[in-house]
Amino acid sequence: MRLSQFHLSTTRETPADAEVASHQLMLRAGMIRKHAAGIYTWTPLGLRVLRRVESVVREEMERAGAVEMLMPSIQPRELWEETGRWEKFGGQLLKLRDRKDGEFCYGPTHEEVVTDFARNELRSYKQLPLSVFQIQTKFRDEIRPRFGVMRAREFLMKDAYSFHLDAECLARTYRVMYDAYTRIFERLGLRFRAVAADTGAIGGSASHEFHVLADSGEDAIAFSDGSDYAANVELAEAVAPSAPRGVPVESMRRVDTPTQRTCEDVAALMGIELGRTVKSIAVIGKQGFVLVLVRGDHSVNELKLAKLEGLADYRLASEAEIAEHLGSEPGFLGPVNTRLPVTVIADRSVAAMADFIVGANETGFHLAGVNWGRDLPEPGLVADVRNVIEGDPSPDGKGRLSIARGIEVGHVFQLGQTYAKAMGATVLDHNGKAQVMHMGCYGIGVSRIVAAAIEQNNDGAGISWPAPMAPWQVAVCVINPKGAPEVEEAAAALHARLEDAGISAVLDDRGLRPGPMLSDIELIGIPQRVVVSERGLAAGTYEYRERNEPESESIALETLEQRLGLA
Amino acid sequence: MRLSQFHLSTTRETPADAEVASHQLMLRAGMIRKHAAGIYTWTPLGLRVLRRVESVVREEMERAGAVEMLMPSIQPRELWEETGRWEKFGGQLLKLRDRKDGEFCYGPTHEEVVTDFARNELRSYKQLPLSVFQIQTKFRDEIRPRFGVMRAREFLMKDAYSFHLDAECLARTYRVMYDAYTRIFERLGLRFRAVAADTGAIGGSASHEFHVLADSGEDAIAFSDGSDYAANVELAEAVAPSAPRGVPVESMRRVDTPTQRTCEDVAALMGIELGRTVKSIAVIGKQGFVLVLVRGDHSVNELKLAKLEGLADYRLASEAEIAEHLGSEPGFLGPVNTRLPVTVIADRSVAAMADFIVGANETGFHLAGVNWGRDLPEPGLVADVRNVIEGDPSPDGKGRLSIARGIEVGHVFQLGQTYAKAMGATVLDHNGKAQVMHMGCYGIGVSRIVAAAIEQNNDGAGISWPAPMAPWQVAVCVINPKGAPEVEEAAAALHARLEDAGISAVLDDRGLRPGPMLSDIELIGIPQRVVVSERGLAAGTYEYRERNEPESESIALETLEQRLGLA
Repeated sequence: MRLSQFHLSTTRETPADAEVASHQLMLRAGMIRKHAAGIYTWTPLGLRVLRRVESVVREEMERAGAVEMLMPSIQPRELWEETGRWEKFGGQLLKLRDRKDGEFCYGPTHEEVVTDFARNELRSYKQLPLSVFQIQTKFRDEIRPRFGVMRAREFLMKDAYSFHLDAECLARTYRVMYDAYTRIFERLGLRFRAVAADTGAIGGSASHEFHVLADSGEDAIAFSDGSDYAANVELAEAVAPSAPRGVPVESMRRVDTPTQRTCEDVAALMGIELGRTVKSIAVIGKQGFVLVLVRGDHSVNELKLAKLEGLADYRLASEAEIAEHLGSEPGFLGPVNTRLPVTVIADRSVAAMADFIVGANETGFHLAGVNWGRDLPEPGLVADVRNVIEGDPSPDGKGRLSIARGIEVGHVFQLGQTYAKAMGATVLDHNGKAQVMHMGCYGIGVSRIVAAAIEQNNDGAGISWPAPMAPWQVAVCVINPKGAPEVEEAAAALHARLEDAGISAVLDDRGLRPGPMLSDIELIGIPQRVVVSERGLAAGTYEYRERNEPESESIALETLEQRLGLA
Repeated sequence: MRLSQFHLSTTRETPADAEVASHQLMLRAGMIRKHAAGIYTWTPLGLRVLRRVESVVREEMERAGAVEMLMPSIQPRELWEETGRWEKFGGQLLKLRDRKDGEFCYGPTHEEVVTDFARNELRSYKQLPLSVFQIQTKFRDEIRPRFGVMRAREFLMKDAYSFHLDAECLARTYRVMYDAYTRIFERLGLRFRAVAADTGAIGGSASHEFHVLADSGEDAIAFSDGSDYAANVELAEAVAPSAPRGVPVESMRRVDTPTQRTCEDVAALMGIELGRTVKSIAVIGKQGFVLVLVRGDHSVNELKLAKLEGLADYRLASEAEIAEHLGSEPGFLGPVNTRLPVTVIADRSVAAMADFIVGANETGFHLAGVNWGRDLPEPGLVADVRNVIEGDPSPDGKGRLSIARGIEVGHVFQLGQTYAKAMGATVLDHNGKAQVMHMGCYGIGVSRIVAAAIEQNNDGAGISWPAPMAPWQVAVCVINPKGAPEVEEAAAALHARLEDAGISAVLDDRGLRPGPMLSDIELIGIPQRVVVSERGLAAGTYEYRERNEPESESIALETLEQRLGLA
């Protein structure tokens, strides 16, 4: 490809309304253009990258035994009524009416349509298992579309679905898909983690999310440095301390903390570690007032708390409720000397503490040297109610946890029989008896991967594509082509050799000055760059630079050929 | 591909609600499945064919210098308001509202979006010409979706757009696109014609339609046997007869035609050629009553008539109006002895007639031996107002016209400045002055081509794909694999050799009985079929058949290799 014949349109300025790096860089590199909130055109440059992702995804889906099909984007309301999702799906479902007043939606996902397909197509267990996939445009009417294609309304997705006679067969295919996803992200050259996930609204029994790691990610992920354990921080188990509770050595005493309302402030005042303080959180559950205790350096995990009996719909206690039960104002709460008897839930780590510090239920005071069984009763319940932190032991007993931020780009679910039951999707088994099928579904945000890859791979100069995602592998840049035709000829010859060798290359023959030309090539993230100039040719050298190397080097043709994989 | 691992789902029965062969066969072969009126899933088999078309289209678009991009399917109302098409496009435009009550449509075409893109991207004549294309799902809310994917509501289209500084440049790219379209349909192995077309609602100055020829086609096409002239019958010029008007030899006389109200009946009664009679059609135009005359074996072309002055909105005259002007009832009208003076428009062929027959304006009578200038004045206007018929001379003077039916699958337009002007899409020219761009647009109905190809290529046994569109080039069928493992081994080995040689092949290892298996392979239209059986292997032969040959033949491996392109 000659860049002069390709519509490349870059800008220096950072667009005002783009908040994250990927959005800014996709606009600056001219990969996407906006027509309405969350609705974009993929320019020729953007589409090249999108297609690279698409083709890796397609190859691995086929390798996993799935066959490609293409379902419609417009779906009739009737199918969504069968699963109850016409209402349940919420405002993200873009509903519409055709000219005959029939009701439809623009598919945000295809469980209903594929189950409709399966119940008509599949009659016998002999046709199972069946895995199908499609790569298709979806629409989710996000209330706040943002970050460019990271959270667009119209987006490109790969969705796959599998059908099985029983749960064991589903579990086997689930594993095959999990492995395929792992290969996809490895092949794309991305740093990622597969994490156990909450199944949320989709339902079902097992699910994993695939996250591309990036500091700007919306999700926090905990993963072990000693195994492949990984989980969303919200779901990662905080295991009980292995060491037994210490023996009390201090006696309980009041500490003057006139303005110290947080554990951090108290620890700072007393000159002790934050991990010796205890945070008290007052909540109201089904049985009334409850005091939840976590270590000062920990935070309450709301999902875990809500899973405890009576706390499914808990809320924070009001100041009046706190005063009524504890006789205190916020900032000085604690489990000792409460006004009324109070249920105490202690996190596993708090239950293992001795000589700890809590609020005194008295404005301006905390209590230090507090010990279970002596200064207050043993906790009513000991449970895992906190978020894991960096350095916690891994729940699988292997290694310690690190925390990283991630961008969810894939999700595999064992749906079980939920959809098949709702829609009557059965096959005859070996005994000629109708059986509701078991289903799996497997999604990848194809367009989102492009943005996530940029979040993970960029610097001050622009995008730095992992080689498998780059629009071109090599850029051959011509300096001052008009002044010296032999320069353009040499560059064109090199470009032609690369293309003949099956190496995707672009010839920058736009005739720009070296500064803007090389800035463009860096901005759009081409992994390898060769500059052909009159001076270089005279000396028999080419200027070569890899996108992630700080400096370019002048090398002879023979060396260049090795670097480019031509030799 | 092993067919046992591919979801193939054929049926013997012809579906009741499918009217045309392509719809019936696509359902029977299991290529598509319906979810709602005009809304289909493309099954794995159907998608394979669709992708073959797509890839030929893509390659030729790229060869024509167009770069691929991807515009959104959901388009904001504001853009459509700028061109006035939000209202003008009519009921086919699927309108919808998002959760914030913003108005959008599901794109039936992309002139608005691409012009929005171009006016933001293109600043200078140096960036021109630019051709872009996309292959994308469109939606047109047909009032009567039918014939399967032939006239579906959701469908796959390739749409391309070009931008130019002037009309000359547009005309050059138009020719390049015309040639690309020709190559596309040639490469797909289809019989087709490019015809001059009426530009209809899209507007602009020049356009051609590409039709796949098939008896079931909706459009009638006239094309020369002596040149590449072709046009929609509605638009083909009926040239004036080359011979001068004959000399009158008969005198005018009344003929008794008591029940003969049509030219056919009169000609039959008189035992003369239909071409000697003249049909009179009474219409009301802007200037009032007009009598239009065409030969008895011709038919009036309403488009041509409406292009004459004062007839843009003409209508047929009522019986009362006919009685008032001619003093006659329908069935016996004519230009002689009219009650009031009447404007006469004669088709070119009628103007060249002598001794012709017309109605007598008297119930039960016609006039024979009528001659211009003697029995009635020369016509007020001589014009081309008829449809061409088989055997007419070609308007380009080369050869004679044939008429065939066609299915429109492609359309190229010179849009000119219509959209660019409406939307303010300008670039600076060589003098730094803003110029409205000239645009072309070029569409291909990718999914429609699949149906059209079947209309053109089918027989009693099913589909007979042109090789470039076939889901697989070769089917290797295994007879009785369980009884003799060496049969399946030999078949699998042949299948593997084909795939290694880059020949798309499918192994039918489903273990069906020969009858149903071979019927399936014929139904889905695989061009070449090899049957591997125990008996054949014992004799060292394979049974080979091409889809369009009536019989199979037993041939040795060496001959087989030649037939399959392996040798």
